[in-house]
Amino acid sequence: MTPEAGRGRSAGHAPGPIAAVSVWRHGTRLGPTVKSLTEYLTFDVPERMAFLNITPELERIVERSGVGEGLLLCNAMHITASVFVNDDEPGLHEDYKLWLEGLAPFDASPRRYRHNRTGEDNADAHLKRQVMGREVVIAITAGRLDFGPWEQVFYGEFDGRRPKRVLVKIIGE
Amino acid sequence: MTPEAGRGRSAGHAPGPIAAVSVWRHGTRLGPTVKSLTEYLTFDVPERMAFLNITPELERIVERSGVGEGLLLCNAMHITASVFVNDDEPGLHEDYKLWLEGLAPFDASPRRYRHNRTGEDNADAHLKRQVMGREVVIAITAGRLDFGPWEQVFYGEFDGRRPKRVLVKIIGE
Amino acid sequence: MTPEAGRGRSAGHAPGPIAAVSVWRHGTRLGPTVKSLTEYLTFDVPERMAFLNITPELERIVERSGVGEGLLLCNAMHITASVFVNDDEPGLHEDYKLWLEGLAPFDASPRRYRHNRTGEDNADAHLKRQVMGREVVIAITAGRLDFGPWEQVFYGEFDGRRPKRVLVKIIGE
Repeated sequence: MTPEAGRGRSAGHAPGPIAAVSVWRHGTRLGPTVKSLTEYLTFDVPERMAFLNITPELERIVERSGVGEGLLLCNAMHITASVFVNDDEPGLHEDYKLWLEGLAPFDASPRRYRHNRTGEDNADAHLKRQVMGREVVIAITAGRLDFGPWEQVFYGEFDGRRPKRVLVKIIGE
Repeated sequence: MTPEAGRGRSAGHAPGPIAAVSVWRHGTRLGPTVKSLTEYLTFDVPERMAFLNITPELERIVERSGVGEGLLLCNAMHITASVFVNDDEPGLHEDYKLWLEGLAPFDASPRRYRHNRTGEDNADAHLKRQVMGREVVIAITAGRLDFGPWEQVFYGEFDGRRPKRVLVKIIGE
Repeated sequence: MTPEAGRGRSAGHAPGPIAAVSVWRHGTRLGPTVKSLTEYLTFDVPERMAFLNITPELERIVERSGVGEGLLLCNAMHITASVFVNDDEPGLHEDYKLWLEGLAPFDASPRRYRHNRTGEDNADAHLKRQVMGREVVIAITAGRLDFGPWEQVFYGEFDGRRPKRVLVKIIGE
């Protein structure tokens, strides 16, 4: 890492009358040692639906990568699971489960979902995953996940009880 | 590509009592030949709502790029369309259409949606696109899209019958 | 920037019988001067729910970065806010507010949401943010945000009346 621009504060432009914008800048000119690191996490969740905090594992991968400035991609490799950023608060996770069940109810019968006429019973999980998202892209700044005060990364399982994988890829310097 | 760290298996840390985590590592120190490639795909879908599998086209672009390790961004350039990853199963696609129609019904009248008081009739398409997402970011590992067993990329059209574009950008080594 | 592959047009492969695909190519081999730039925007929105167009600020950051080819990550650093791409049309924004309120109604009482038994009143904001998303990744091509005709970036606030931050990170050449 060759820090060419230090941290500084500059007056920002407000995008509209209702917002005050302040800007802190942190610029780095990367040298020729651009690196990538790819890792795979495997989960076998006993419940049908569950949320697991994977932030500590991501922090360890960032540390192992030695990347100072870069991007981290973390995505579910299965299409009935999500990776998302939100709060590590058990009550909220219960709210998510009830809310998602209302938006896309589990129904193994072939009546509600055509996908379940193929022998599957997990059409609802394919829908829930779209609401919660497949992936997150997270900034790495000064060797750390560049997070706000409450941001935590979760693996969201909507059709558990079998091993499933998450990909983590870091590109940077 | 200068593979400095080979593939290996290491015992991972479980993020909680209900998950077993295994980690495979694939690390690469990129040389100075970092590359980017940008391509644009154009679609003209005769239906109002449809899902098209664009995975083969993305695989051809990755091959053309010559990138071994990197990230691929694929996004709709129009705000009534999506790019998302899910299953190539026609029954599931019908489920998505019915589900999205329930969450955000088409209604060309100016009564339900204020956006349709502007002369437009596609407010529902702007809402559906938020559920399904604008973009995906996909890892490229060892020269291939690094996908789980069923991951396929779809262009989701919610206001078709005119030409619309998708951007594909690759950055890597 | 060392443009090795010029712009060209090639006949693309249609992913199915209902789509015509055209491909324009713009390839660049990046030199060793890969750069990153990180900035933070702060918002203090007086309403509980509001959408702010932050595209001009992102354009200024891209210009300051000097990056010609790269990726821009823009994400909310708070978990009751979103960054998303859609249309700058006030009627549509009203539609989003009503629609989100229908999907995840505000209810400060501890009855509807368990999260609000913790002393919080913003469980609905955590749900709304999942529908609208945490982040966008945008291509930078030839020194500009590579946008379709109507794409604009918005900060989506779902629990305002306190200062909150957005991260912008650029990686490229």
